[in-house]
Amino acid sequence: MKPDTKTKAIPFSFRSIFTWGAQGQFKNPSKGFLSVIKKELSLSDTEFDTPVNLGNTRVEGEQKTAIPKEELFQFEKIVGLENVSFDTYSRLKYSTGKSMEDILQLRQKRIENICDLVLHPRNKKEIQKIVSLCHEKKIPLHVYGGGSSVTLGLSCPNGGVTLVMSTHMNKLIRLNETNMTITVESGMMGPFYEDLLQQAPEKLAAKRPYTGGHFPQSFEYSSVGGWVVTLGSGQASSYYGDACDLVVSQEYITPAGSFTTHEFPAAATGPKLNDIMKGSEGCFGVLVAVTMKIFPYYLKTANAFTFMFPDFMTAVKTARKISQAGFGMPSILRLSDPEETDVAMKMYGLANGWLDRFMQFKGLKPGVRCLLMGQTNGEKSFSKNLFKQIKKVGRSNHGLYLTGYPMKKWRKGRFSDPYMRDALNDYNVLIDTLEASVTWEHLADLYDAVRTHIKQNPGTICMTHASHFYAQGTNLYFIFITKMQDVDAFRLFQRSIIEKIEGNFGSLSHHHGVGRMMAPCMEKHLGQEHMAVLRAIKTHFDPHHILNPGGLGL
Amino acid sequence: MKPDTKTKAIPFSFRSIFTWGAQGQFKNPSKGFLSVIKKELSLSDTEFDTPVNLGNTRVEGEQKTAIPKEELFQFEKIVGLENVSFDTYSRLKYSTGKSMEDILQLRQKRIENICDLVLHPRNKKEIQKIVSLCHEKKIPLHVYGGGSSVTLGLSCPNGGVTLVMSTHMNKLIRLNETNMTITVESGMMGPFYEDLLQQAPEKLAAKRPYTGGHFPQSFEYSSVGGWVVTLGSGQASSYYGDACDLVVSQEYITPAGSFTTHEFPAAATGPKLNDIMKGSEGCFGVLVAVTMKIFPYYLKTANAFTFMFPDFMTAVKTARKISQAGFGMPSILRLSDPEETDVAMKMYGLANGWLDRFMQFKGLKPGVRCLLMGQTNGEKSFSKNLFKQIKKVGRSNHGLYLTGYPMKKWRKGRFSDPYMRDALNDYNVLIDTLEASVTWEHLADLYDAVRTHIKQNPGTICMTHASHFYAQGTNLYFIFITKMQDVDAFRLFQRSIIEKIEGNFGSLSHHHGVGRMMAPCMEKHLGQEHMAVLRAIKTHFDPHHILNPGGLGL
Repeated sequence: MKPDTKTKAIPFSFRSIFTWGAQGQFKNPSKGFLSVIKKELSLSDTEFDTPVNLGNTRVEGEQKTAIPKEELFQFEKIVGLENVSFDTYSRLKYSTGKSMEDILQLRQKRIENICDLVLHPRNKKEIQKIVSLCHEKKIPLHVYGGGSSVTLGLSCPNGGVTLVMSTHMNKLIRLNETNMTITVESGMMGPFYEDLLQQAPEKLAAKRPYTGGHFPQSFEYSSVGGWVVTLGSGQASSYYGDACDLVVSQEYITPAGSFTTHEFPAAATGPKLNDIMKGSEGCFGVLVAVTMKIFPYYLKTANAFTFMFPDFMTAVKTARKISQAGFGMPSILRLSDPEETDVAMKMYGLANGWLDRFMQFKGLKPGVRCLLMGQTNGEKSFSKNLFKQIKKVGRSNHGLYLTGYPMKKWRKGRFSDPYMRDALNDYNVLIDTLEASVTWEHLADLYDAVRTHIKQNPGTICMTHASHFYAQGTNLYFIFITKMQDVDAFRLFQRSIIEKIEGNFGSLSHHHGVGRMMAPCMEKHLGQEHMAVLRAIKTHFDPHHILNPGGLGL
Repeated sequence: MKPDTKTKAIPFSFRSIFTWGAQGQFKNPSKGFLSVIKKELSLSDTEFDTPVNLGNTRVEGEQKTAIPKEELFQFEKIVGLENVSFDTYSRLKYSTGKSMEDILQLRQKRIENICDLVLHPRNKKEIQKIVSLCHEKKIPLHVYGGGSSVTLGLSCPNGGVTLVMSTHMNKLIRLNETNMTITVESGMMGPFYEDLLQQAPEKLAAKRPYTGGHFPQSFEYSSVGGWVVTLGSGQASSYYGDACDLVVSQEYITPAGSFTTHEFPAAATGPKLNDIMKGSEGCFGVLVAVTMKIFPYYLKTANAFTFMFPDFMTAVKTARKISQAGFGMPSILRLSDPEETDVAMKMYGLANGWLDRFMQFKGLKPGVRCLLMGQTNGEKSFSKNLFKQIKKVGRSNHGLYLTGYPMKKWRKGRFSDPYMRDALNDYNVLIDTLEASVTWEHLADLYDAVRTHIKQNPGTICMTHASHFYAQGTNLYFIFITKMQDVDAFRLFQRSIIEKIEGNFGSLSHHHGVGRMMAPCMEKHLGQEHMAVLRAIKTHFDPHHILNPGGLGL
């Protein structure tokens, strides 16, 4: 079956930067998924004969660095020689995220918008000195967490310094079982964080195991601090909360001073600094530590469920009923539109078998029917009751219950799916996603407008699902797959989708942050009054505008 | 039984301003409660012979008004003559809240810190013009919602204009059943708001009844906008959320422009303006409309429960277990310390009967034992399961289950209890409350320090309870009762308690807001970095510093 490239990235190559996750790990699209792609994109087998733009050559050549020698020496003195690099590879690596645009650039071996200097600070004091020095000398300062930004959050259009937080600033500060919180340095990576919690009895002599409840698809390659400053959400957010709900307190170093926000569970002492800093994407200061809510880890209380609904709006209505009933929220809830449902049926091997025939007999037709799947979590009796209620609501709203099987299938591929992108990209098949928060009222409008727009591009798959549910609305996720080689053409297409979202009641971003991708739309989206407030705060913290210049559109 | 004053306030008297709630409504302390007061404050019956400082004389005399004639004329032109008043009574009334200090001042017929002019704007356009005029002429501008502030939030130390929002700016804008939200003008009062929702099918042709879920003790005399700008919490907040969680979007008029914040259920587009405005107490702009979350109103799903625990820390630990279990939260949860428990037993007629003897036989001794009571709400199966789980946790943690009876008794007196304050005040018996958010870790420290401090004042009752629960902590409510006549002595005593709270891990305020009472402590409490950010935002919105001068300590 093609594609089946397992082109291992050579060390220090462009490819080693842009491919997903762990080196040497691969994932090819399933037979079912590939057949859909070939059909919809009108691709013949020969188009998968030769991989292209592999970017598998070393990043070489000297790039001019704008940091004067004198300051370079000062930075070296602060963090130690072994924690400084200014070779082109390092500078490129730490100025690159995982957006399709980043990848295309690197596949074309373009080196643009990179920082001048990479520093791996070892502690807060060093960061304080770096912030002071950058402030004084007006050197741009960026922060790199796990590097999973899909919104060009890491590029450095004005060069400057990038701090890599995951190298040293990744330690546990305190597990507080009484308050059910954990305080960690901001560069701690997802798996380390969650392992600490789930294995708290063994690793930290805790009374019980915990979970952080935050599992974005980038989980393995994102940092706790990154979740907070970009306002991320994990797949289980409907029960545990978005990063914005999970963060109790933050510690920042800024040109205007350093501080830790209060840990009170609530307070009526004016607007909260913890809120003001959430989502600041490195534009107000450097996040050095966070205190997060944690939850009891109940190993065996999860209940997976799946329904097939006759059509999209019936499924939407049911998801809304579940989200508004007041019996608690499932951790995971995902509602696929007909196109995504059809692909899922093929990916999970459910299409064309007896189950498919049974569904069609029941009036659940391909091209119209929709999957709604999810999982309940939490304390046993709560999870059990919720599972029961959801099944009741699903069944009484024309849903055909399909057990938890498809949900479990999805869960299994969840964290390895991003590797598939590389396999397809090797043949110029591009996959990208855009997401948007939307109220229930405007969901259909947004869905129709954006889907219609994407489908106008010939030979384009557009799979849409709703995930992350609230009583007041949800998040629509648009996944589009098309054949495109040119980065500029792609950028144009992608930006046109963003504009469609923005113009049709969608938020610019539900959990991907702003970066430099959304930045140009921020003023229109938030309004000039909102932007003026953000600018006033920015100017307060960062009067020389050195922190992540261009971030948030400020 | 004494006291039994039913001194009806004469129209336009000081008394008509400072007494609680509806004119002509009274509540005397129960026999049990009164006996405790007499004993603890060492008061004989004769001390209740003659009421004092009734303040039952008309507010008269001309007060100098600082608004020049020309501007006065302009204000009249904007809102219409019938919506302007500058008589001393009106000016005093709308500059006064319901703090013990406000009351003592008025009982002593002191007229201080009043506004110069009272305006009742009829719509947004008028407010826009008023804000512009005040900005241009540098006239202080205050906003009066329901008038229930207990933190001197309404006083006008620099005079100026006070806008009364409840007169005209009290209308429904939209019930949105799809999004489960309601948009109302900020001056709508609690009962009108909740009635609209509970009777939505009859009044608004809605599909079902709803509830706002927000029931502070001031519910009848506070406005929806007031809940939001002071970050209030209702008795059922543990399930429905604090005002801060309930507000989806806000519309403001400020000197720097007017805006409505987004209604997205979540967004990752930088720091949220909706968050920045919450709790701004009229210092950043005038809140003219709010969109709030609403909930299905389930009439018969409430389950009340009560436990008696052998001691305070056992009860605290149990409440913590309930709050951290992950099976959902009860709407109401209240944990009384031994002193409050003893008073409650007497108030509810439970002391000295067979139940009391049974408790004592079981080792639940007066002066040590503690009541934990509450109520589950929400969807039927959720509420039922939660009720069951709470009983299980209570029983397995040394709690004696006492049915829902005491809880129902409490609920019954809930909204009339504030009237009792007037009855006691008539005999110089002062009751006041201070509350503080605290993490579980520091609850015992805060409790001990503040209680010890209050009890050092001879003849003082100090009843404490925890209410409003979170996985990370709770709110401690200190109710102190003592005999004191002098407002300055009282102020000194009260401020010393605030300092004790602040110095012992308590927040300055959990849900009472800041006002001018907490303002002097804000810099110490929040830290200069936090205050500097608030000041930067203030300066952005209100460069002439006309909005609620001195509010939030800015």
